[in-house]
Amino acid sequence: MATVPKPDNPEADARVKAVFDDIRTTRGSDFVGNVWQYLAFDPGLLEEVWRDVKAVMAVPSLIDPKTKEMIYAAVSIANACDYCTHSHLAAARAKGMTMAEQAELIRLVATAGKTNHILNAIRPPIDPAFLA
Amino acid sequence: MATVPKPDNPEADARVKAVFDDIRTTRGSDFVGNVWQYLAFDPGLLEEVWRDVKAVMAVPSLIDPKTKEMIYAAVSIANACDYCTHSHLAAARAKGMTMAEQAELIRLVATAGKTNHILNAIRPPIDPAFLA
Amino acid sequence: MATVPKPDNPEADARVKAVFDDIRTTRGSDFVGNVWQYLAFDPGLLEEVWRDVKAVMAVPSLIDPKTKEMIYAAVSIANACDYCTHSHLAAARAKGMTMAEQAELIRLVATAGKTNHILNAIRPPIDPAFLA
Amino acid sequence: MATVPKPDNPEADARVKAVFDDIRTTRGSDFVGNVWQYLAFDPGLLEEVWRDVKAVMAVPSLIDPKTKEMIYAAVSIANACDYCTHSHLAAARAKGMTMAEQAELIRLVATAGKTNHILNAIRPPIDPAFLA
Amino acid sequence: MATVPKPDNPEADARVKAVFDDIRTTRGSDFVGNVWQYLAFDPGLLEEVWRDVKAVMAVPSLIDPKTKEMIYAAVSIANACDYCTHSHLAAARAKGMTMAEQAELIRLVATAGKTNHILNAIRPPIDPAFLA
Amino acid sequence: MATVPKPDNPEADARVKAVFDDIRTTRGSDFVGNVWQYLAFDPGLLEEVWRDVKAVMAVPSLIDPKTKEMIYAAVSIANACDYCTHSHLAAARAKGMTMAEQAELIRLVATAGKTNHILNAIRPPIDPAFLA
Repeated sequence: MATVPKPDNPEADARVKAVFDDIRTTRGSDFVGNVWQYLAFDPGLLEEVWRDVKAVMAVPSLIDPKTKEMIYAAVSIANACDYCTHSHLAAARAKGMTMAEQAELIRLVATAGKTNHILNAIRPPIDPAFLA
Repeated sequence: MATVPKPDNPEADARVKAVFDDIRTTRGSDFVGNVWQYLAFDPGLLEEVWRDVKAVMAVPSLIDPKTKEMIYAAVSIANACDYCTHSHLAAARAKGMTMAEQAELIRLVATAGKTNHILNAIRPPIDPAFLA
Repeated sequence: MATVPKPDNPEADARVKAVFDDIRTTRGSDFVGNVWQYLAFDPGLLEEVWRDVKAVMAVPSLIDPKTKEMIYAAVSIANACDYCTHSHLAAARAKGMTMAEQAELIRLVATAGKTNHILNAIRPPIDPAFLA
Repeated sequence: MATVPKPDNPEADARVKAVFDDIRTTRGSDFVGNVWQYLAFDPGLLEEVWRDVKAVMAVPSLIDPKTKEMIYAAVSIANACDYCTHSHLAAARAKGMTMAEQAELIRLVATAGKTNHILNAIRPPIDPAFLA
Repeated sequence: MATVPKPDNPEADARVKAVFDDIRTTRGSDFVGNVWQYLAFDPGLLEEVWRDVKAVMAVPSLIDPKTKEMIYAAVSIANACDYCTHSHLAAARAKGMTMAEQAELIRLVATAGKTNHILNAIRPPIDPAFLA
Repeated sequence: MATVPKPDNPEADARVKAVFDDIRTTRGSDFVGNVWQYLAFDPGLLEEVWRDVKAVMAVPSLIDPKTKEMIYAAVSIANACDYCTHSHLAAARAKGMTMAEQAELIRLVATAGKTNHILNAIRPPIDPAFLA
């Protein structure tokens, strides 16, 4: 159950349609997931979120697309975001992540979760050697 | 200020010395950071944490070493772990991450943080298309 | 699925009935949501939680009731509390929050989530000018 | 200690100078806090963060400026962001929040934190009445 | 909906069967919960997680088994882990935790959640008297 | 640096003095830590927080005092609360927790942190057998 209503015919709104069209074109797919279907309740918010995600995820950059999705999924797991974990793991697989790589990603995130708790428990001073 | 005392001469304990020696050998460096210096208060816990971190980070695997440190840092940022954020960003730079890549990593983590909050606010149903 | 059983006839317990009556009177509504129905498994805990929520949310104070629900929802989103996010967004709407205001609240929470991650990644020193 | 170096003379970079000038003009103050001084290590990231914060916080909207800072601070507290908590509480005070209102904000955030934990422990089903 | 497929016949894999057998023997029960059924998608990850959980939870140590499950549940609640909250509260009850003790545990976790938010809002200096 | 000013002479306020006196009497010690010294900026908030903490921590109940402090510390670690982690680990030690028990507590919290991340990544359905 969502906290906002899903518009019945979201693309009747021209701003929504423009975003959905851009999602389809950018990704070369007809699939427009529920995050966008529900964000359509507020076209301005929809435009902003798509602008942000497109700028980071759909534009060639220093980190390759599959790795970007894996990092995005790692943060989503740490933040306990159910939808985001599903969508970014699926996106990573769509960009080539194998199930063996997904298992390694989960192991890595879990080990980080473990040592994050240890260091937040022990709270040693930060080594000057870590200075950028 | 830490929640456990830092042993004055940790390597007087044979189990601690064995871990510190393995850290130095594995990393090819004399530097043994504060996480290990303070964990030495309990040799068994020290051994376990080093075993875990070594198995994930120091053994060749499907994800390359620099990327593993970047994912580790991403989780640490999301979990608000001060020491871990510093240590894994430093480790990623030591394995070749440039400051431009660090900026991209921070942008990516921040965008994930943004959409994690949006999806945790809207809570749409998970698309069946995300099924593995 | 909850981690405690929902009592079949919670108001058979006099302490539970007193709390439910007070909820109905305070809010001028017959609706007693699942948080209270399930907390009835332990009348002492039910009394304590209602005392706290009533003191903060149902007593006139410096912050107006609609804004209090919006702040409560903002914290609940950041803490990934599903039930709380739904209940406090619904309460804010019941107190006059429009869907346009809900969209602005979500945008604000999401921007905070973004910069929280950026600052937890960069960790600059706190400006002395921020001193109260 | 930050994870990125603070540029010695950030405004020597024209993009950084343009952002700093806009911060000063928008806020009518010469103060440019450490978040911006350190973000100057990457002018593109600096531009993006300022664009986001300005769009949400410095443009008139449905929620008044003081309340926006209070909501921003509430999320920052929940996310354990030290710098953000300081900066947004200070910004709220600069926009008129009294210490009595800050005390009420803290009480409200703390009560939300308490019930967030209770609901994440009990996990009752979400009431259909909460539907938007 | 999970992010990994549940193997149809997990014990056809010898490594999975060995772990499941050890779970059944260690716990003296035929029940092998979904965490293990789904982790079977990657036998190495399954082995590692069971090794960790067994070492901490199934081996006699300084903290008694029921208390260990209660602490585990407390952390899981704070981390908003749905499955973990259910499984460790159930495990604590199986080891003797009464519903009255579960109510006290929830009250304690909730009070900690409240003061954690207060201290993350106020951020006083740490008293030197707390030094170990 | 705190976000509220520490009153110079907090016990000049009769309500603050009453709370501080009760803290000293209840604990049989002259030490009144910074959490209380800073909360004195708002006597009403101080009274509320002390009332809550006293009711949970200073009144005999089903869970023994040392274990309550250990659970409190576990939640504080998971919530990344620096002050709380220090104060409740110190309180647990004052009530008899040995350093060996603190090491076991940290190991337990860390293992929970690890599996919390794994389950938030995999998200298997909750077993009906966990029903209370």
